[in-house]
Amino acid sequence: MRQVVVAGRLTLTKMYGEIITIGNELASGRTLDLNSWYAAGRLTASGLRVTRITSVGDDHKMVADTLKRALEASRFVIITGGLGSTDDDITNEVVAKALNRPLCLDQQMFEQIKGHAEVRKIQLTRAFEKMAWMPEGSKMLNPEGTACGFSLTEEGVHLYFLPGVPDQMRYLMDKFVLPDILSRYDTLPVMRQRILKLYGLSEPGMAEIFKDLQCKAGNIVFGFYPHFPENHITISLRGKDEPTVTKALDKAEKDLRRLFGAYIFASGNESMEEVVGRMLSNKALTISVAESCTGGLIGHRLTRVPGSSKYFQGGIVVYSNQAKIDLLRVDPNTLENHGAVSDKTVQEMAQNVRENFNTNLGLAVTGIAGPDGGTKEKPVGTVHVGLAAEEKTVSGQYRFWGNREQVKLNTSMMALDWVRRYLNGDPFLSGV
Amino acid sequence: MRQVVVAGRLTLTKMYGEIITIGNELASGRTLDLNSWYAAGRLTASGLRVTRITSVGDDHKMVADTLKRALEASRFVIITGGLGSTDDDITNEVVAKALNRPLCLDQQMFEQIKGHAEVRKIQLTRAFEKMAWMPEGSKMLNPEGTACGFSLTEEGVHLYFLPGVPDQMRYLMDKFVLPDILSRYDTLPVMRQRILKLYGLSEPGMAEIFKDLQCKAGNIVFGFYPHFPENHITISLRGKDEPTVTKALDKAEKDLRRLFGAYIFASGNESMEEVVGRMLSNKALTISVAESCTGGLIGHRLTRVPGSSKYFQGGIVVYSNQAKIDLLRVDPNTLENHGAVSDKTVQEMAQNVRENFNTNLGLAVTGIAGPDGGTKEKPVGTVHVGLAAEEKTVSGQYRFWGNREQVKLNTSMMALDWVRRYLNGDPFLSGV
Repeated sequence: MRQVVVAGRLTLTKMYGEIITIGNELASGRTLDLNSWYAAGRLTASGLRVTRITSVGDDHKMVADTLKRALEASRFVIITGGLGSTDDDITNEVVAKALNRPLCLDQQMFEQIKGHAEVRKIQLTRAFEKMAWMPEGSKMLNPEGTACGFSLTEEGVHLYFLPGVPDQMRYLMDKFVLPDILSRYDTLPVMRQRILKLYGLSEPGMAEIFKDLQCKAGNIVFGFYPHFPENHITISLRGKDEPTVTKALDKAEKDLRRLFGAYIFASGNESMEEVVGRMLSNKALTISVAESCTGGLIGHRLTRVPGSSKYFQGGIVVYSNQAKIDLLRVDPNTLENHGAVSDKTVQEMAQNVRENFNTNLGLAVTGIAGPDGGTKEKPVGTVHVGLAAEEKTVSGQYRFWGNREQVKLNTSMMALDWVRRYLNGDPFLSGV
Repeated sequence: MRQVVVAGRLTLTKMYGEIITIGNELASGRTLDLNSWYAAGRLTASGLRVTRITSVGDDHKMVADTLKRALEASRFVIITGGLGSTDDDITNEVVAKALNRPLCLDQQMFEQIKGHAEVRKIQLTRAFEKMAWMPEGSKMLNPEGTACGFSLTEEGVHLYFLPGVPDQMRYLMDKFVLPDILSRYDTLPVMRQRILKLYGLSEPGMAEIFKDLQCKAGNIVFGFYPHFPENHITISLRGKDEPTVTKALDKAEKDLRRLFGAYIFASGNESMEEVVGRMLSNKALTISVAESCTGGLIGHRLTRVPGSSKYFQGGIVVYSNQAKIDLLRVDPNTLENHGAVSDKTVQEMAQNVRENFNTNLGLAVTGIAGPDGGTKEKPVGTVHVGLAAEEKTVSGQYRFWGNREQVKLNTSMMALDWVRRYLNGDPFLSGV
């Protein structure tokens, strides 16, 4: 299946490779294999094609077998795990044997290991030394750093060996492996990717808009990733230089923003709570929350962000009606006449929590998370969101689909999104 | 590598097999492969050995290649995905071709599909019909149910084909595949497993105790799974009949309970919040929470449990000192003299939230989640837990290790564990 590399630029889909992860903890199902997932996602997002992912235990024969197979079928192979100092770490040895290359002491690596041992005041045992013995022809990926991996080329196939430690693996993958693969298979050296995060559009609706876009995109690779309750879009492009790529990506991002408007809540890795936190910080505003069905989830999310104490004053979780009356001074008549899950109740909650905590904004939610408590008029998933500011209080009703956990998550997300939209001056919130 | 099956009972480690998951969403890294993780975990816990896990895209050649390879190396193969009605669903076709078997219409399956189509009022297209065409010799796994999968035997290797939909895959795996594999390779037909969940012991400490146990265990297979911040132990045994196995497992569980005592908080799938909820329900007690560093996480966890409104009245999140004074009536002198992260503060928080919500118990936490805010005396990870009941209020200090999210999680876990221990009459809480 391997193809001969021809001169000139290849289409991206011809750049295919595979991933092998090594470790008993993976094959036995004890540990979830996040390394292969990460590597596959990064390769795909860069326009490369991953044809196979294989996890094998620390077994000489199995590792050798899988590696040989990969050499026959792929043009690059990422291998993670088995590079450490224990008896289970067999990668170097197996590779040397399988490729019929002697193990050679890499002097640079050896010095590095020696240095570490000295700093940490541990004895330099043979087990540690082992890590510096690498198959002949290996090249260290990161000679200056502490995360160790190596690469070698066998019969035109590029092999990359990375540690199984997720942070190190991810670092080496992004910093060294991906650029190296792209430089080998592509005459266009610059590769850039952007991520846009969306919330509030249904997945099929989004896919529909997205389908049109894909046809018009030219060289740009769009990726669409549902990520409950969010949807993520990646825009990837390679080109001959930074300005060309940046310009094209700017245009593509602009197109997307025109299509999806206020549904885009973040770009890059920022979470909804980070976006909201940053906006509150920038405007020097404070917030408090009154939660019913989410039980504290909104406060938990807001306080995930380091430094959130600057804008988050606190919250009141009023799970029972009595607590709504006693702690949030919700009018018993409101509860009697409109019910706990109503615009009137959520507005009183938002206003009163704002007053109690003396904050600029008061955010409130009340709803039926299920599985019980639904009625014909207000089925499970019925949720009201309310936001009180100095000038006005707004509220709205939603019907979320899903189980208890999903309804809670969607409710917290929508509530935070209201804050974002409000701070953006979104007409959405005037229209409620 | 395949071994000839000899008469009599084989040792478990000789029962080895592999898992193949099919789907572009897996190889591309768009979707995390939880199916193989689940299957591998279940097989391992049953004493079977998984030698390899392979994920491939919806590609004829790659699927055929991987399947043939598995037939050469394994005694059983679990294959998930590609059984649906879309063009991407190629499993049946590829398998038929690879094994040189014609596709035959399975009448029973066809009737089932027809029935579904009628109920859901959708037209029975050829795409749907496709699902009923299976490789010759296939046997439906679940002829009575809605989740469809099939098995067949090729050259003594047992192949199990399951849908990629996680719920269906898990159901068929547990209900049909696992018992079938065990019945084929083992003359001991009854296989049972128990899970014990522990909290509060360090992982190395636990592994140490556990190591001793493993040597004495005989036929029982123990599994040890760190599951931050919990640790899980599985006890598995196969035997000739139910009473024998149950008796042996009872003994093993008793040994474990003697070793780990009150650190065991649950057996089976119950979560800490479910255990606490069940205990509160049974004793008809109510609870409220005052949270600082967890920001609402404890309330969120308590309200994950359906029906939690019976015992959870609500909570107050007091993130700022001012909120602690205004909303929880914490004495400003206490904050001034002892600090917000202190036994005195957490005790006042617990007592006052209990009074505010008029509940039997008041639970409180305050701490430094980081990354900022730590001092030499109170470094990041310093946390105080307090529990107020009618007769007394107790509190204690912890130093948790980890990042912000981990400190929050550990704090919520410890707080809930205090409630569990208190309700169990654990002397632990008198000693604080």
